[in-house]
Amino acid sequence: MATINKNFEKLPGSYLFSTIAKKVREFEEANPNAEIIRLGIGDVTKPLAPSVIKALNSAVDEMSKEETFKGYAPDLGYAFLREKIAMYDYKDRGCNISADEIFVSDGAKCDCSNIQEIFGIDNTIGVCDPVYPVYVDSMAGRTGLYNSDTMRFDKVIYMPCNAENNFVPELPGKAPDLIYLCFPNNPTGAVISKDELQKWVDYANENNSVILYDAAYEVYISEENVPHSIYECDGARTCAIEFRSFSKTAGFTGLRLGFTVVPKDLVLDGVALHGLWARRHGTKYNGAPYIVQRAGEAIYSEQGRREIKEQIGYYMNNAKIILEGVKDAGFTAYGGVNAPYIWLRTPDNMTSWEFFDFLLDKANVVGTPGVGFGPEGEGYYRLTAFGNREKTIEAMTRIKEAR
Amino acid sequence: MATINKNFEKLPGSYLFSTIAKKVREFEEANPNAEIIRLGIGDVTKPLAPSVIKALNSAVDEMSKEETFKGYAPDLGYAFLREKIAMYDYKDRGCNISADEIFVSDGAKCDCSNIQEIFGIDNTIGVCDPVYPVYVDSMAGRTGLYNSDTMRFDKVIYMPCNAENNFVPELPGKAPDLIYLCFPNNPTGAVISKDELQKWVDYANENNSVILYDAAYEVYISEENVPHSIYECDGARTCAIEFRSFSKTAGFTGLRLGFTVVPKDLVLDGVALHGLWARRHGTKYNGAPYIVQRAGEAIYSEQGRREIKEQIGYYMNNAKIILEGVKDAGFTAYGGVNAPYIWLRTPDNMTSWEFFDFLLDKANVVGTPGVGFGPEGEGYYRLTAFGNREKTIEAMTRIKEAR
Repeated sequence: MATINKNFEKLPGSYLFSTIAKKVREFEEANPNAEIIRLGIGDVTKPLAPSVIKALNSAVDEMSKEETFKGYAPDLGYAFLREKIAMYDYKDRGCNISADEIFVSDGAKCDCSNIQEIFGIDNTIGVCDPVYPVYVDSMAGRTGLYNSDTMRFDKVIYMPCNAENNFVPELPGKAPDLIYLCFPNNPTGAVISKDELQKWVDYANENNSVILYDAAYEVYISEENVPHSIYECDGARTCAIEFRSFSKTAGFTGLRLGFTVVPKDLVLDGVALHGLWARRHGTKYNGAPYIVQRAGEAIYSEQGRREIKEQIGYYMNNAKIILEGVKDAGFTAYGGVNAPYIWLRTPDNMTSWEFFDFLLDKANVVGTPGVGFGPEGEGYYRLTAFGNREKTIEAMTRIKEAR
Repeated sequence: MATINKNFEKLPGSYLFSTIAKKVREFEEANPNAEIIRLGIGDVTKPLAPSVIKALNSAVDEMSKEETFKGYAPDLGYAFLREKIAMYDYKDRGCNISADEIFVSDGAKCDCSNIQEIFGIDNTIGVCDPVYPVYVDSMAGRTGLYNSDTMRFDKVIYMPCNAENNFVPELPGKAPDLIYLCFPNNPTGAVISKDELQKWVDYANENNSVILYDAAYEVYISEENVPHSIYECDGARTCAIEFRSFSKTAGFTGLRLGFTVVPKDLVLDGVALHGLWARRHGTKYNGAPYIVQRAGEAIYSEQGRREIKEQIGYYMNNAKIILEGVKDAGFTAYGGVNAPYIWLRTPDNMTSWEFFDFLLDKANVVGTPGVGFGPEGEGYYRLTAFGNREKTIEAMTRIKEAR
């Protein structure tokens, strides 16, 4: 008889954002006149850039004619897109990554979870705490058991990130086999300097660990000496896989496009991970839509880059408004300079969820309780810069009044 | 130190269609003037229907304006699409499937492989032989070892399909925990009658097995008493998951859209599989693009259905031309009536690959060697009806001359 994968039973009941949605729905039902402002989920609000729309229209037109119709895409993605990525995201920043080391996909969420399939089931995994829940929830048989008191799985190696270490974890004493790092960080908005990241690369190479580097927010980096890619570090080609997304870069959350870089020099036990990921990608995935790949290509044109820069500028201005707003209101807050997330300390020893309820009730503002990202997130709260300008300003006014 | 997932090493070196592509490339280099006709891969050639293009254009327009822009899609897909599917694909055929049992995705290939994640790693799996390679290649730890002499994995339960049983397998003596069935079948083009399928449903319910039913080609069914969905059978709601695709139905191979049905009555050990798949889908997948879901919705409009019917008619006319053509040329052939695939016996005791080389050389026609789908496919060869009409006719002329 068929049986279920018992690992699902180890997962905490509900996905963080589903719980939030439920609470907000209940509040709305009880308070039908409340005008709720949502600064919780990391979804964008600006429409697609004109260059992207133009590329979509033109690609849709191609799909309407027999001569230019496109069926199945090449396994790893169209060359026109991979070459632009290799040039603008890597070569231009001094990174030695070739187009055929880039795997186009429908987003970083799928890739950063599915990547675990190419590794041994007994590999240990290190994650920052707090952390984007997907890394942990997709670990299947590798987590060990969940302890609901500590809110931790017993086989996962948690690397605490807090104000004391500037939200950049220490190198663990015993090296995890796989190490998830995400910078600029979701949820804390922290970044890592190039020197610090180099230490992680050296550590991974010394210990034969693989770094799974989530660089989904690199476009929000505004300061110097903050690496946009792990391949800016020496030796990363032998120890790191990098994930990128068009979601936050160009507002593709509803269009779906991302990519993963697996350098050909990354070899375990004589086997190149590039070949394994190519096999996994080719066997269980059928490529991102042609029209979406054309849309992705458009952000690398001169006009496209200008438009994207403007869009990012808009969100980062929101980030500034939030960071200054909550500081003015007397909060201690982090992030928001190189990332679209502001990570603030809850006041008066409130727990994350108490503060969530407080803000929902008093200010009708919705953010994300820090504890939802891991136990070290307790006492923190995340606000995102992806909202509309007027509502973001209004939210700050309300938060100040509620305080 | 990190290690690889050793199960990858058990897979035969190359994906079938990559080997074919390589052989064709080499032939082309040696014979630069040959005009090769490809009736091998199951990719469509007709452009998207006018209704689909119209829906795409309108959805792209929505994405260009702040008021109508769409970010992340709902986890399970937009209600506008799921409700159309529930109505036209299920209710209209007397199947009791509700919209919230339908999970929209980017295609059946991903779903029919990823579905294995919700089952125990020790579950045995039965597959038809010959079979669509993806089911087997994605089994990860469940296959046992590969024997290159028998071309079989030792833990997979193979269910032979050949001319003797009309390409419909017998019920195995010992029931597999999971059973992949695909009707209309890829690669043989065979169908199963409703009475026969009912036997499988009863068998699965008696043995607590789960049927993974791939109905990607249901739209090609032209005869009566051939089930379009497994849910036409009594009791399927407690034992079957069904996969569908817009790829072959509406030419979406390059647009990517499909869906999976997990009835809420399908329960193992007290756990509803619906909840497990929802958790898997929500954790590791981020939804099909809004514009593509709108495109999918368009095929259910009155005009859309008319256009799709015409497109399918075109391909099925090709199928008829091929079936009659190869029979005229003296071949024994199957399929092609309720499926876009024609499955023919190789002549003169040629192996599948010998016949592949023979046709490539003498007729410059490319099909797929039957043995590529499994050992029972040896001595067979697959032709597809997705080509252009003129080329399909020309291919038949050449095959007759080569014979």
